[in-house]
Amino acid sequence: MKKVSLLAPGPTPVPPRTMLAMAQPLIHHRSSDFLEMFGRVRAGLKKLFKTDNEVLTFCSSGTGAMDSSVSNLLSPGDKAICVRGGKFGERWTELLEAYGCTPVNLDVEWGYAVKPEQVEALLKDDPSIKAVYVQALETSTGVAHPIQELAQVTKDSDAVLVVDAVSALGAYDIPTDEWGLDVVISGSQKAMMLPPGLAFASIGPKALKLMESSTLPKFYFSWAKELKTQGINKGAFTSPVPLFIGLLDIFDLIEEIGLDNIFKETAVKSQAFKAAVAAWGLELFSKENASTGLTAVLAPEGIDAQDVVGWLKEKYAIFIAGGQAQAKGKIFRVAHMGFISEFDTLKAISAIEMALAGLGYKFEMGAGVAAAQKIFGEA
Amino acid sequence: MKKVSLLAPGPTPVPPRTMLAMAQPLIHHRSSDFLEMFGRVRAGLKKLFKTDNEVLTFCSSGTGAMDSSVSNLLSPGDKAICVRGGKFGERWTELLEAYGCTPVNLDVEWGYAVKPEQVEALLKDDPSIKAVYVQALETSTGVAHPIQELAQVTKDSDAVLVVDAVSALGAYDIPTDEWGLDVVISGSQKAMMLPPGLAFASIGPKALKLMESSTLPKFYFSWAKELKTQGINKGAFTSPVPLFIGLLDIFDLIEEIGLDNIFKETAVKSQAFKAAVAAWGLELFSKENASTGLTAVLAPEGIDAQDVVGWLKEKYAIFIAGGQAQAKGKIFRVAHMGFISEFDTLKAISAIEMALAGLGYKFEMGAGVAAAQKIFGEA
Repeated sequence: MKKVSLLAPGPTPVPPRTMLAMAQPLIHHRSSDFLEMFGRVRAGLKKLFKTDNEVLTFCSSGTGAMDSSVSNLLSPGDKAICVRGGKFGERWTELLEAYGCTPVNLDVEWGYAVKPEQVEALLKDDPSIKAVYVQALETSTGVAHPIQELAQVTKDSDAVLVVDAVSALGAYDIPTDEWGLDVVISGSQKAMMLPPGLAFASIGPKALKLMESSTLPKFYFSWAKELKTQGINKGAFTSPVPLFIGLLDIFDLIEEIGLDNIFKETAVKSQAFKAAVAAWGLELFSKENASTGLTAVLAPEGIDAQDVVGWLKEKYAIFIAGGQAQAKGKIFRVAHMGFISEFDTLKAISAIEMALAGLGYKFEMGAGVAAAQKIFGEA
Repeated sequence: MKKVSLLAPGPTPVPPRTMLAMAQPLIHHRSSDFLEMFGRVRAGLKKLFKTDNEVLTFCSSGTGAMDSSVSNLLSPGDKAICVRGGKFGERWTELLEAYGCTPVNLDVEWGYAVKPEQVEALLKDDPSIKAVYVQALETSTGVAHPIQELAQVTKDSDAVLVVDAVSALGAYDIPTDEWGLDVVISGSQKAMMLPPGLAFASIGPKALKLMESSTLPKFYFSWAKELKTQGINKGAFTSPVPLFIGLLDIFDLIEEIGLDNIFKETAVKSQAFKAAVAAWGLELFSKENASTGLTAVLAPEGIDAQDVVGWLKEKYAIFIAGGQAQAKGKIFRVAHMGFISEFDTLKAISAIEMALAGLGYKFEMGAGVAAAQKIFGEA
């Protein structure tokens, strides 16, 4: 008997109570009950994003909201910095090129964080740069970019800072207004503990101003259209009703536990997992700013990381993630964000130990579990 | 005790068994189990659309797929005919304008169907027209446009026919390949009996050719990108896993009942409801080609149709729809598509009778119910 465990960095497990809440009969998306629900979703999102800005909701995956942050802010030919320290950073370049804009690529070695001075220098060098696109947590490497510091840099320039926080929001603190983040993007299927299908974008005053001059075409993802309708608690188009019901349930759950406690719990799971990695004599892929949302581990010399991932999947129905693109075969990644308990983390650690041993790696079996237990015991 | 009844033309009720199927724990969207599921979804969609064309799936509402049919087919300045016989027809014009294309508006009086000769004349007059955009069922008026005849007209031209079948597909027969429809768009929340959140587009050879010359920007809704990945059973971005599980359950349900039987049942519900309307001495809003998917009814002289809609909602928790834009206050609309039984239809008829009587309309109470019962008895 195998129990499926999702421990990859998204989609993450959904609390069963939330799944069942979403299974109740639909209500009509133009009914007063739904408008009232939409209002509560807006208020809950502002609380989660820690912002007074409007947080727009889209029926799409997180990439849809990323797409919207290009088509609603830029005009053809516009230059924007793309911080590329992993696969999701590269997506900004693809997006800008798809829209006929001019990416200013800031390549960061995978496993490292961008240096705010690099962004500052580029912006000083070319004041026509309209925006800086960056991930809060680059899911492909496990690195957290220094968002607060980047916001300090963009604040003194004309450029708008766009932060993809799909993997980060709800995993650790990203206070939109306190840090002065112009646009923050997220999605339902990671730390927000829901199935995929909802994406979010908070839009601050500097972004709203840039939006007004944008001439790129947009319709389904038009911020102007959605600001007008969502401002009165309606989506411009048909809203995915069950995900709204689910989101309200998640807001209740976050309220019960406390957002700061969730950040702490996520950090403890991350610390415990990273202690296990050290106990195995292995190294993190992230050489600096290793995030608490997930851990990327370098597989031992001579062992294909995909074999570790495959071993867990085939033998134990445990889903962790491998590396993407240049990191494929070299790393495996385990999530700590969302509805994952310390025992899920211990399960992952045990399973990885069994896989590593099975694949011929020499280490003291149980050492990772013990190291993690120690952290959990102290927390 | 009030039981909520959804009888508006979308979102329609979802079978409880499907809702519960979707409540099961998530699986990973890159797992082999999900790829296998994606393959079955593709096969099921081809069967439902009656096509050998690829039917792409998007995580969005139906409007997202409409948006994609402009950005993936046209280039800036391109001309395309927009058949505008209602609110959804007008959306084509908005879309074309948003993308800097040139709409050739073919205005049809609300309540009437487009005449294929009009489209033929426009295409002959201007062979540079790239596409014809039309609704199969114009949800705002209840009219079914003559899609088969329109396809005959476009077949002999260079123009691609794009059919919005969001409300129509699964309600009545729209055989994509037999009729030669280049692009057919649909969504999950109407006759497909699922919550909103999935949209579809079948893409034929003529559309694929036009796609190759299209220079409008696209990323999230890129057909080329999705054709490449969905052809090997993967979404380019994160797929909304529960809706895929739900869709497979709906395919099972359709298989059990038989698609043709569903069309017949929908037609009988429509016929019964329309018999009730006649028994009340009222008229349909659709003066021709009244669709079987839904019925739009002109409210009696002196009664605001919104009061009928409001009466059902407030007193009985029954959701039907009012009119949109120019039809607001004049009509109310009741759906027959999807998971709606003959007794749901009789419930709607009873409730409307009680509302009409309450609002002062003089007619024989129960006459509509009896007329509908007769139709159901004969069927």
